[in-house]
Amino acid sequence: MSSPEVIGKQFVAAFYQTFDTNRAGLAPLYGQGAMLSYEGELFSGQEAIVQKLTSLPFQTIVHQVTTHDFHLTVDGGLLVTVVGQLKADSDPIHGFTEVFYLKQVGDGLFVFNDIFRLALHHQ
Amino acid sequence: MSSPEVIGKQFVAAFYQTFDTNRAGLAPLYGQGAMLSYEGELFSGQEAIVQKLTSLPFQTIVHQVTTHDFHLTVDGGLLVTVVGQLKADSDPIHGFTEVFYLKQVGDGLFVFNDIFRLALHHQ
Repeated sequence: MSSPEVIGKQFVAAFYQTFDTNRAGLAPLYGQGAMLSYEGELFSGQEAIVQKLTSLPFQTIVHQVTTHDFHLTVDGGLLVTVVGQLKADSDPIHGFTEVFYLKQVGDGLFVFNDIFRLALHHQ
Repeated sequence: MSSPEVIGKQFVAAFYQTFDTNRAGLAPLYGQGAMLSYEGELFSGQEAIVQKLTSLPFQTIVHQVTTHDFHLTVDGGLLVTVVGQLKADSDPIHGFTEVFYLKQVGDGLFVFNDIFRLALHHQ
């Protein structure tokens, strides 16, 4: 098995390439019972997650990853943290943070937790 | 046992209160074999982690939490994501992201993974 960093980088590249070109194609990346928190709103299960992602109200989006970090957990999961910037339609560029917890199931690696936040502060 | 949100909020409040007043006091929050990535640099074990945190070159620091999210994982761990702002000494305010993976050991809840990043982008 490759290192957490190699696996993590492949995942991050694949995730945002799919997000930016074909959001419905993200479905197979989520495991059974996966959870997504999107700007504080919780979605449980692949179907609810993909419905949320595909209904986000923009036509075009581009994610640019600034930093990523990868940790193996004591439970054999892969923790992935991304800090980046995104541009949706003609909106201004926003910073964002996204955190994934991935586990291997059979031959595949699946997202079981996904927490997304725009980096919007009050001041 | 309290909900992930109640436990998570208590942890986040305690962590940053301790960080901002007595960094050496963070030691007992980390579990055996814990890992910290601080701006991409990896530290393994409570001793190395606390040495890094206590040697950070500022005299005063104030963390302000903007958002926090809490997920239970399929492994019974607690995933905590914080987006906030910090001010060190007289430096400008910076955005930051910090992610914790906590597990219960005996009667205590301990940090096993901690990933910290300033929200600094190239553009």
